[in-house]
Amino acid sequence: MKLERAKGTKDYGPEINIVRQRVVDTLKRIFMLYGFNPLETPVLERYETLSAKYAGGDEILKELFKLKDQGNRDLALRFDLTVPFSRYVGMNPNLKMPFKRFEIGKVFRDGPVSLERFREFTQCDIDVVGVKGMIADAEIIKVLQRVFKELKLDILIKVNNRKVLDSIMEAVKIPEDKRMDIILTIDKTDKITQKELIKELESKGLEKKQIKDLLSSVYVESKDNKENIKRLKELLVNSEGILEVEELFKYIDDKNVLFVPSLARGLAYYTGTVYEVFLKDGELKTSLAAGGRFDNMIGGFLGQGEYPSVGVAFGLDRITEVLSEKIKSVVKVYVVPIKTLKESLMIAEELRDIGINADIDMNERGISKNLGYANSYGIPYCLILGKKELEQGKFTLRDMNSGKEELLSLEEVKKRLKG
Amino acid sequence: MKLERAKGTKDYGPEINIVRQRVVDTLKRIFMLYGFNPLETPVLERYETLSAKYAGGDEILKELFKLKDQGNRDLALRFDLTVPFSRYVGMNPNLKMPFKRFEIGKVFRDGPVSLERFREFTQCDIDVVGVKGMIADAEIIKVLQRVFKELKLDILIKVNNRKVLDSIMEAVKIPEDKRMDIILTIDKTDKITQKELIKELESKGLEKKQIKDLLSSVYVESKDNKENIKRLKELLVNSEGILEVEELFKYIDDKNVLFVPSLARGLAYYTGTVYEVFLKDGELKTSLAAGGRFDNMIGGFLGQGEYPSVGVAFGLDRITEVLSEKIKSVVKVYVVPIKTLKESLMIAEELRDIGINADIDMNERGISKNLGYANSYGIPYCLILGKKELEQGKFTLRDMNSGKEELLSLEEVKKRLKG
Repeated sequence: MKLERAKGTKDYGPEINIVRQRVVDTLKRIFMLYGFNPLETPVLERYETLSAKYAGGDEILKELFKLKDQGNRDLALRFDLTVPFSRYVGMNPNLKMPFKRFEIGKVFRDGPVSLERFREFTQCDIDVVGVKGMIADAEIIKVLQRVFKELKLDILIKVNNRKVLDSIMEAVKIPEDKRMDIILTIDKTDKITQKELIKELESKGLEKKQIKDLLSSVYVESKDNKENIKRLKELLVNSEGILEVEELFKYIDDKNVLFVPSLARGLAYYTGTVYEVFLKDGELKTSLAAGGRFDNMIGGFLGQGEYPSVGVAFGLDRITEVLSEKIKSVVKVYVVPIKTLKESLMIAEELRDIGINADIDMNERGISKNLGYANSYGIPYCLILGKKELEQGKFTLRDMNSGKEELLSLEEVKKRLKG
Repeated sequence: MKLERAKGTKDYGPEINIVRQRVVDTLKRIFMLYGFNPLETPVLERYETLSAKYAGGDEILKELFKLKDQGNRDLALRFDLTVPFSRYVGMNPNLKMPFKRFEIGKVFRDGPVSLERFREFTQCDIDVVGVKGMIADAEIIKVLQRVFKELKLDILIKVNNRKVLDSIMEAVKIPEDKRMDIILTIDKTDKITQKELIKELESKGLEKKQIKDLLSSVYVESKDNKENIKRLKELLVNSEGILEVEELFKYIDDKNVLFVPSLARGLAYYTGTVYEVFLKDGELKTSLAAGGRFDNMIGGFLGQGEYPSVGVAFGLDRITEVLSEKIKSVVKVYVVPIKTLKESLMIAEELRDIGINADIDMNERGISKNLGYANSYGIPYCLILGKKELEQGKFTLRDMNSGKEELLSLEEVKKRLKG
């Protein structure tokens, strides 16, 4: 039998996953700083839920992993964490509003596979339900800014509002049933050339005048958000969207935020603000985080009520990749017993008692094999325990980077390793 | 549309999940103390891998969730973390041995559903590959003991060795092809009455004499491990299993460990030591953790080589349930702006800067509504920010438990909340 992974899946070995888990810890800590509580929903959902009218739309349904349980029920693997969140809120009518939650979990999309696209990947979401005002949309930006500042990644947050796009569509007189399709093309503004863009818009049946007006609305020359908002306000009279954008920018420090009127995001459920986060100087065309406002999904699920909601998903794997740091082991000290297994086990336990990650040779190999082993895992210290030294209460601590060895008491060893 | 979860799945709302995530944090920390590194394998595996001869065996295959990708490949959802771990080790021949990893993730079993059995649940596994000696099996017990001590759960660790069961089968002259079946019955010794046990053994074709000999071997009267090991050593001459059990007990403090010769564990892949952890005084018949040695799986996958392996899986959901603690929110302080939204936002940010989990009213509701909201989530403090007080640099901090309010400076507020 040939050993293989399922296509489009990945193993995260310690070398990548230690850093990846530290990113998770940073995200969790910051989410909780802002009062988001941990929710966990299942990977398996009913097919009916994921394919509901108010969920992700037709595009994403093509990538659904479908299956049946032994009772022949139609199930599917979730493609995001937002639809399950909405299902959860809908099923818990006694939740006090606003309700803020974070969730970190695997999502699945049976689509094309590339070096940057996998069929199983981890999303880290925050969402708040129950706040209409742009203050909630602003808080999402504050979380984004704090997260990437702590991760020391220089990013640009692109922001738009679906209602701005709607107003532009209306101003340019594009019929309602065509709008979503045109919006998907407009969304590519930053990814393809203007020539390609025009060609695609022509192929979708727009007239020259419409295309000209469209492009003059969505193309942004200036990096000054105030100026761009002002220009759009003049172009789009009475647009609720542009007023929301204006209000949003009042609550935030916009030094790494850019209002981009062409930004749409593919998923059908967005109704207002949309976000997409990119590395500032990156070649990477794919985003590190993305999200937006989805005021209609939960109410749509329930068939009644207003559930204004806004949130963002962090792409854990891409963020980890961008950090490109590698750590091979969490172990701080490798204990090497030289015919002192029983005593060495007790000393390893003592180190663990004070919070030091300690591993121990369990195969009674010689010193040089053990040093080679510790070295291959990048473990910073070895503690060598010979019979004679043990009797004197002394231990050889070897700094694996410098190669320097010192004869220390257990207390001194503890101090050194804790420092 | 009726909103429902997939059958056998569960939502973990904050009230359960905050405690549950703290259990995860404790497990992770202790796993790393013992030098286990984080690995993450996919939920999706190839059907061929999960159904391989050296994997879980026929019983578990009946509960497999099968599906296909768009390329018509046969896939399945993993039913444990051990088989994917073995597949990973097999695919990474350059891994330095021993290799110790932990993994925390969802596993799936399409079996009967009950209050204690779900179709999707979380396992937290540690495994070490590359150590033959019982020292590794002993380390697993040390981890179990440290975990449950920190969680303040009084547990009993039942231990056996599959080779002991094999020796008993041999001594009682049960033919090899019948052994696994008889072992599955023997495994029920603690769960059904002796009468029921005898009846089941009779129905499986054992003779009276065989049953008598069998029961006298596996039934343990004494709680003294040394005595029980000695008795079995006399009964089973030259049994490798009982010598391994004897060695294992040399390395551990056995105050909450019991040698139980009837313990088998259902999965087919175990080859030596097996563990199962129960609450000491619990009604609960299901275990909080379980595992064992599986020396043949990885080599079997590869068709060559020796990969001695031992590990244990912690049942996160059951442990959380047993703790039965409920926390409704991670928020420490709820900021209530009274027409001071902009200033309040800045103060909330300052509290977050020093690590205090702070939430803020974003709907500009009145004081009493906000106090009611904070109360319903069990948030311990409210910080009320009026215009007048702000001008004087004073803030009203309300202790939600006592109802006591104090007028404090921001520095005093920070000190109180950090304490």
